[in-house]
Amino acid sequence: MEISLVTLKDARNIFAAAEKRAAEIGQPMNIAVVDSGGNLVAHERMDGAWIGSVDISINKAFTARAFNIATKDLADNSQPGQQFFGIHGSNHGRIMIFAGGIPLKKNGHVVGAVGVSGGSGEQDQTVAQAGAAAFSVDA
Amino acid sequence: MEISLVTLKDARNIFAAAEKRAAEIGQPMNIAVVDSGGNLVAHERMDGAWIGSVDISINKAFTARAFNIATKDLADNSQPGQQFFGIHGSNHGRIMIFAGGIPLKKNGHVVGAVGVSGGSGEQDQTVAQAGAAAFSVDA
Amino acid sequence: MEISLVTLKDARNIFAAAEKRAAEIGQPMNIAVVDSGGNLVAHERMDGAWIGSVDISINKAFTARAFNIATKDLADNSQPGQQFFGIHGSNHGRIMIFAGGIPLKKNGHVVGAVGVSGGSGEQDQTVAQAGAAAFSVDA
Amino acid sequence: MEISLVTLKDARNIFAAAEKRAAEIGQPMNIAVVDSGGNLVAHERMDGAWIGSVDISINKAFTARAFNIATKDLADNSQPGQQFFGIHGSNHGRIMIFAGGIPLKKNGHVVGAVGVSGGSGEQDQTVAQAGAAAFSVDA
Repeated sequence: MEISLVTLKDARNIFAAAEKRAAEIGQPMNIAVVDSGGNLVAHERMDGAWIGSVDISINKAFTARAFNIATKDLADNSQPGQQFFGIHGSNHGRIMIFAGGIPLKKNGHVVGAVGVSGGSGEQDQTVAQAGAAAFSVDA
Repeated sequence: MEISLVTLKDARNIFAAAEKRAAEIGQPMNIAVVDSGGNLVAHERMDGAWIGSVDISINKAFTARAFNIATKDLADNSQPGQQFFGIHGSNHGRIMIFAGGIPLKKNGHVVGAVGVSGGSGEQDQTVAQAGAAAFSVDA
Repeated sequence: MEISLVTLKDARNIFAAAEKRAAEIGQPMNIAVVDSGGNLVAHERMDGAWIGSVDISINKAFTARAFNIATKDLADNSQPGQQFFGIHGSNHGRIMIFAGGIPLKKNGHVVGAVGVSGGSGEQDQTVAQAGAAAFSVDA
Repeated sequence: MEISLVTLKDARNIFAAAEKRAAEIGQPMNIAVVDSGGNLVAHERMDGAWIGSVDISINKAFTARAFNIATKDLADNSQPGQQFFGIHGSNHGRIMIFAGGIPLKKNGHVVGAVGVSGGSGEQDQTVAQAGAAAFSVDA
């Protein structure tokens, strides 16, 4: 058995909370959870959610763990003229620089991340926040 | 809302049956389900399963739907000297030519696929079969 | 600070032991160490070692962690007609199926891997073994 | 034995100076050194540094050698409306257009480069400068 600080059970709790929020706002979503190594723990595409968002949700989660930052905040630094403009060309296309990816923390350490894609930036963000909050409560 | 013949609920039923079988044989697995478009519906990595099998499980499912064939059977035709040798170099690395990917059928039509990776070829196959059987029963 | 079971100091110890062995057999090598997530901790190319082996050493280490197996053993199962033939086409070209990648263990758990490339399979393997042994002693 | 103007010993000197500077500013970094062919000589990820910066540090070094320019200066020419806008889409994702990559010179010729990633643009730049300075002194 591997040592993992984000289990499949954790991912399911995150999915349940995120899907509840997605239902509230009436927008089906792709939701992904990665562990501390940035590797996928689990992914779910809600019925009717965009197929182009499979990749985006997984990579928002990867990005949030890769730099220990919410992708929404990375976005601010990755615009033309800003200090990280061009970062979206690194890591073989896995860096997502818009809202929806949020690190998961345990005892102050980032141990994984959740990524959500399927609606507007604001919608993705609120669903990701709901998912991340479920992990904190659970921890 | 998209019309999809493999729902998230279907994927969860497949996961439950596949994980039961994986537990029986004592080997944690990655399990993936794709829809009729070959696009990911959901993926789960059981705790302790190989991280290198995330990609493989997803792509075994893709392959099984892409050619409407069990990857175990595609394997026979993809050996050196056989008619499809070299096919694993197509589709940008998404074609898996070993056991563990099985098409999902509804009324005789392939509507998706399940892919399993995490053990020997024989172990992957038996877990994928358990998952696929749950879909048929459910349908 | 991240929790990591393979530190930079560990990597340097592995490098020292591996380079000593490489010097003994008179073959300069590329040596790479990855952590439990398969992510690179450190890489060194000894003076005169092949540039084509940069990628190979890093990916042998990735492979050994991705499947918790020595790449030498994976090789046996990845030949034409064997159960994993075609696995080298997965994971976006990161799977190396020849000798030189060895998992690093702590308390019976795989927590990373070392990858060596720069000579014959036998040479790569003996240098990787020397590196892995230094980690075990240190642990 | 290859003729290389950036040896592994050079890389270690660069690492030592760069890590000293990184410790001073309290930010763990990824540091990479490439030779005149743009090929990796060595890479180190300091404990706790971002895993997403492995790729970026290596490719900042590649970029600085590929165009014999500091990536910070390339950035100015790669913004929307500027003469090199879009260059980050070339070379299969290996071109980094933000601060942290600096050419290494010997007798006025570029013979390699150092790349640093793990903090703000300003932090990456000061650590890369410390590393590059160690090479000049050493030469």
